[in-house]
Amino acid sequence: MASPEIDALTQALARLPGLGPRSARRAVLHLLKRRETALAPLLAALDAVNERLVTCSTCGNVDTNDPCGVCSDPRRDGRALCVVEEVADLWALDRSRLFPGRFHVLGGKLSALEGIRPEDLAIDALVRRIEAGGIDEVVLAMNATLEGQTTAHYLAERIERFPVRITQLAHGLPVGGELDYLDEGTLAQALRARRPVA
Amino acid sequence: MASPEIDALTQALARLPGLGPRSARRAVLHLLKRRETALAPLLAALDAVNERLVTCSTCGNVDTNDPCGVCSDPRRDGRALCVVEEVADLWALDRSRLFPGRFHVLGGKLSALEGIRPEDLAIDALVRRIEAGGIDEVVLAMNATLEGQTTAHYLAERIERFPVRITQLAHGLPVGGELDYLDEGTLAQALRARRPVA
Ligand SMILES: [Zn+2]
Ligand SMILES: [Zn+2]
Repeated sequence: MASPEIDALTQALARLPGLGPRSARRAVLHLLKRRETALAPLLAALDAVNERLVTCSTCGNVDTNDPCGVCSDPRRDGRALCVVEEVADLWALDRSRLFPGRFHVLGGKLSALEGIRPEDLAIDALVRRIEAGGIDEVVLAMNATLEGQTTAHYLAERIERFPVRITQLAHGLPVGGELDYLDEGTLAQALRARRPVA
Repeated sequence: MASPEIDALTQALARLPGLGPRSARRAVLHLLKRRETALAPLLAALDAVNERLVTCSTCGNVDTNDPCGVCSDPRRDGRALCVVEEVADLWALDRSRLFPGRFHVLGGKLSALEGIRPEDLAIDALVRRIEAGGIDEVVLAMNATLEGQTTAHYLAERIERFPVRITQLAHGLPVGGELDYLDEGTLAQALRARRPVA
């Protein structure tokens, strides 16, 4: 009996990771009961993200400016470049404030299962950044998953011809662990103990 | 390092039931990666709900029209009135297509803990609907929680002076169970075995 508008909103919410059809319905009810205090702010926040945010053409971060705040911050050490799978990984590492350099977001990981090939990721752009010079170290901060490590291995081969130190996060990461879900202590340890790629 | 826009969206999503800060961050990333296929539809759905939906002044349902589709459906039996706590409960009962009558949404339940008193719920409106006549049976379909049953008890006392049969859902409902989370079989059984309030 819910209206088509409510069905559409329920379905749109149910497709978010972490929400299913039932919790989406609960969320819709929550929003309908709190139109001024919950629905309006969510609508405004979503609209602002949609209107104002752009993808940084240098690093793949999402921000209001292009280049993004990280890329244009003069206090950051441009000689160190940390390569991550997703924007969320960039945020996770940046929250920890342990890495003083810049970032490069691949936009995913190589996956035979999902048919994701090198040309589907921002790998050519990474190679061009390194080729342009000024970078001493590339940290491959992939997730400690099979696909993440396959991606790191592939990247190491692609950039080994450049005069840069290639490192990866220490395997203090739990097997199967994803960066965005780790506590800062684990992240800090893994980053401190990063080691050259063989 | 996430922008204020992303922080605002993350916080608005994190306040939804079923999502916490971490899953909200995941959801935001999901939306940012799928601006056309996920963010735009969610924004449009939320905007449509915000723009088009109104609360039915008769029953408290949420719909594009006032009176709502349930109240204006001539095939429904206006002599039977089912009183529920929330709009989601109306939807849950309506999905099961087992109740041929109309509904009345209280907008909550009595709660000493949360300070919710009779005047905070649509109880006077319920009394006026019954007083206006034409209703033979009032089904008190509160949740099988302490507060739901307290509310049902209070309602039964408020309307016992009218010439209507007052029934409530059979206690096939699991203790502590909430209507919106039950399968249709349980709902059907509870509705079939509804009994007069003592
Ligand atoms: Zn950038
Ligand atoms: Zn109605």
